[in-house]
Parts: sequence; C-alpha cells; structure tokens
Amino acid sequence: MIEIVEVGPRDGLQNERTPIPLPVKLRLIHHLVEAGLNEIEATSFVSPKWVPQLADAAELWPELPTGPSFSALVPNARGLETALSLGVNRIALFTAASDEFTQKNINQSVEESLESFAQLANCFREAQPNGWIRGYVSTAFECPYAGRIDPHRVVEVANRLVKEVRVDEISFGDTIGAASPSEVKKLIHHLVNDFAGDLSKVAWHFHDTRGTAIANVAAVLESGYFHRLDSSAGGLGGCPYAPGAGGNLATEDLVYFLNREGLECPVDPDRLAQASLEILDLLGRPPASRAQQATLALCARAESR
Amino acid sequence: MIEIVEVGPRDGLQNERTPIPLPVKLRLIHHLVEAGLNEIEATSFVSPKWVPQLADAAELWPELPTGPSFSALVPNARGLETALSLGVNRIALFTAASDEFTQKNINQSVEESLESFAQLANCFREAQPNGWIRGYVSTAFECPYAGRIDPHRVVEVANRLVKEVRVDEISFGDTIGAASPSEVKKLIHHLVNDFAGDLSKVAWHFHDTRGTAIANVAAVLESGYFHRLDSSAGGLGGCPYAPGAGGNLATEDLVYFLNREGLECPVDPDRLAQASLEILDLLGRPPASRAQQATLALCARAESR
Repeated sequence: MIEIVEVGPRDGLQNERTPIPLPVKLRLIHHLVEAGLNEIEATSFVSPKWVPQLADAAELWPELPTGPSFSALVPNARGLETALSLGVNRIALFTAASDEFTQKNINQSVEESLESFAQLANCFREAQPNGWIRGYVSTAFECPYAGRIDPHRVVEVANRLVKEVRVDEISFGDTIGAASPSEVKKLIHHLVNDFAGDLSKVAWHFHDTRGTAIANVAAVLESGYFHRLDSSAGGLGGCPYAPGAGGNLATEDLVYFLNREGLECPVDPDRLAQASLEILDLLGRPPASRAQQATLALCARAESR
Repeated sequence: MIEIVEVGPRDGLQNERTPIPLPVKLRLIHHLVEAGLNEIEATSFVSPKWVPQLADAAELWPELPTGPSFSALVPNARGLETALSLGVNRIALFTAASDEFTQKNINQSVEESLESFAQLANCFREAQPNGWIRGYVSTAFECPYAGRIDPHRVVEVANRLVKEVRVDEISFGDTIGAASPSEVKKLIHHLVNDFAGDLSKVAWHFHDTRGTAIANVAAVLESGYFHRLDSSAGGLGGCPYAPGAGGNLATEDLVYFLNREGLECPVDPDRLAQASLEILDLLGRPPASRAQQATLALCARAESR
C-alpha cells in the first residue's frame, strides 16, 4: 500500500501572498480527508513575520477533524512550545543537503540546524514519547545556489538526522524540481548501502518544475524499497527561495499514476479534483495538476450532456 | 543518439482555431531548426474544409529550409497528389488501433484505412522510390470511445502497416495521454515478441494529459530497443476528437529529460524555449511545457539582474 503525505495545506500555501481565510483552509483539509488522504501536513508553527499565510496555525490546529494523522512543521523552540501546548504529536523539521540553501532559507548552516533540531527533538520526545518526527532533507539533488549535490552528502545529513535527532522518517526533497530518474536511482543506491535508518520509512518529495516528478516517483517505486510519497493538492506551492522553482508534485497527478499502475491507493480522484478549487479560485490560478485539469474537463463535459 | 521527431507545426497546430499566418509558421520551423531539431513533421495535405489551419500546406512546403528532414501527413489520394507535385519525399499516414476512433476521426474503419493506405503507399513509392513512410497507430493504449486497447490488437495493426503498406516506421500514440509505464512495458513486451518490422525504427508519441509522458519515455528508453520519440514544441496540440485530451508531450520537457539523463541530444534548451513563444502569444496561452516555463523564468530573472 502506497502512503501519500499530503503537504498542500502547509508547503502548498506557505508562500502564497493572497491570504487564505481559516475556514477555506479547513474546507480544503476536510475535502482532502473526504477524498481519502489520511496523512496531512496541516500547518507550520513559524513566526507570522516570516510566513504570514500560516499565522493562524494555533487557531487551525484545534479545528482539525479526528481520524487522519496531522502534522505540523516546527522551525524553533518557540514554535515547538506552541505546538506542544496544542497537543501536536507529529512534527516536521526542515534542513537541507546544502549550506547555501539552509543559510538563505532558515539562516543557519546545516550543522547549526542539526544541533538545534537535536534539542527540539529532545523537548518533543519528553512531552510526546510516542510522537513522530519527520526530517526534511531539501536540495537532495540540486541546490539553486550550490548546483548538483553529491549523494554522499545527502546520506550524511540523513544519517545525522537519524542518529543525532532520532527522527522517525526522512523526506528527501527535489526542491527545485531538477532531478531525473537516473539521479534518483543513484541516491537510492547510496541509501541502500549507507543509510542508518529504516528505508521503509523514507519519503520522497518531488517537484514537477520540469515535468520529471512522475518519472522520479516511478523510479522510487520500481526500486522496491519505498512506499511513502509527498504531494500537494492542486500542485499548490513551490519554493520562493529557489530561483526557477515551480510547483510541488500535484497529488492528483500522483494518484492518477498510482491508480493507473494498479497500485493500491485509497483516494477518490473525482473528489480530490474538486478539493483545491476554492483556493485556486481565490489565488486566481488554474490547477497546476495535469490529471486534475483532465478530470475537471471530463466532469464538465459529462455535465453539459 | 536519441532522435526527436518534432510534430508541433502539424500535430500541434492542426486543431488551433486562431489562424496562424504562414510567416509565423515558417519562423517557428526556422527557430526549431536553429535549436537543433532536424526531423520535423511540417504540415498536412488535408482538405482545408477539415483542417483550415493547414490550408497553406502547398504554400509552406516550398519555403522550408534545406537540411533537416521534413515530412507531411497525407490523408488521401488528393493530398498525396499535391504532396508529390511539390516533391514531398517523407509522408505520414494516420490510423489507430480502435475502429471507434478512426470512424470518428477519419470516417473509416481501421480495415478501410489500411486498404486505402496500401494504395497511397504504392503511388508514393512509384514517385519516390527512396521516400519514407511513417504509419501512425493512434489509441495504442486507450481509446476515448472504446476504452483500454488490447496490445495484441496494437501489434496486429502495426504488422499490417508493415506488411501491407510497407511503412518505414511506426509511431505508437497515447492519443489521450492516459497510459502509464506498466502499460508501455506491456506493449513493448508484445512488440519484442511479435512485431514484424524493425524495432529500432519504432517511434513513440506520448501526450502529457495526465502528467505521465516523461515516465513513459523513461520506460521506452530503459527497454533499450528504441531511440525515436515524438514531441511538440511548447506542448502545442492535443486531439479534439478525444474527450479530455490535453497537450502533446512538449519538446522542451523531452529535451530537458534527455539532457538531464545524460543522453545525447543536440538541441539547445534556451533557443528551444523561445521558438514557440510567438505562436503561444497569438494563441493567448502560456507554454504547456513545464521545462519551458522554468527556462523562461530563469532567463527573465537573469535579465532583470
């Protein structure tokens, strides 16, 4: 069974300037859950100064439906404090394989981020002994500032997250959507040989900036080691710190691919196609997802008959 | 060496209602050639009643630059006559693996199309003994009217094109952009066992309607049998007879993928990204190509510095 980690409400929305009202965000999440998504990164407990779009994190969290697994990004001690006060038991920590990227993005070197995460993780574990920590390793293939990334370095950062921060899972990100399948296979080869954690808990976070995301997903699944994939409803989100960055892999495109490949995936494509429309409308933008566009065109045609 | 058959000027434009003036078409072709594309399906000698956009085929052909290989679609005896009068030595014939599709599309059964193609091919060979005939097998995976297509049927139609029409190459089309890699691998398996023609002259024509085109290309190349791929600059074109059909695989996305995979491909991505802009502007549409969007965004950013 493939597991989809839906990141639209956090990663998809965080860089959108148009303020999305809290009820609209909750409707998005509600529709995603109804479509069958059961693991959702819902928000980030980040300073409103840095990410105004997610300033409502503490209002949003108590309104989330029960049942699915919700998680939140936590950038620092202050964010963790708020998250813990709300009973958040799944958090995500964000670093990268390139200092140039973390420096511009979180104003720390990779080393500094790992040190601060080790402390955050300790505090989190004390409060939530059965909690779950995800560690993001961004720029796992290419950094917009440092260029191509050596897979040894990627595995090294991942292993430190496993050993020093004791994360439960790693999500490897193709942050600027540059990678193609041979690079993915190369990183997998290094992980199989040298990764200190549990391969079955590794997730993959692709961006479809240049049309390669589904081909990369195919390479990941073909390897036989992995079954966790990140995606964002409607293809919402990219990365503003990365020149040339386009959208996250759209959940609709991922679900279409999985269904068509005959892989078990309990998500309803028609419901999913509708979920992000209200927000896309507010943002004044058509869906970035190709499968969603096709589903909506077919639905419109069926209705007009 | 991968061979790209650029189909934008014919397949990409044929269903566009906005008339594109002849000089604009010639500029597109000129820019594509300058970018490094050397095999281009330039137009179709079809009745202007059916495809008004390509009514200028006889004016366009004599203006094409020398050097690259140009071909034209030929639907019937009248079109062939015009093509031969202009010295066209590479033609393409269009059928499908599903009667429901050919009936709606060319108003013939597959059987009838094969019979008429055999006659056309004979006439063509007489006039152009060293000419080249491409046979399109559309709906090679799914037909919008008949649903999923049995790969046995696809190979059967292809074999009749080889044996009865004596085509030089076949192009298998995922006409509504529905296929995913496991289906592509299944068809390849059947071709390897039962195809009567030369596998190395088989081309693949994917549509990216649901985001699977590059993954399908990866499956084709991984098999090791094939090196010919169709694509359309700017992702121009789809298929109006196919409900839910989106764009052809964009040449820019294909070229990005090939370059990133380290496969030899003599096309300049920056020049290619510019080639279709004039037409996209006339059509009032952003590029459907993800790689092209990324290249243009990076170029704009570089210029603004």
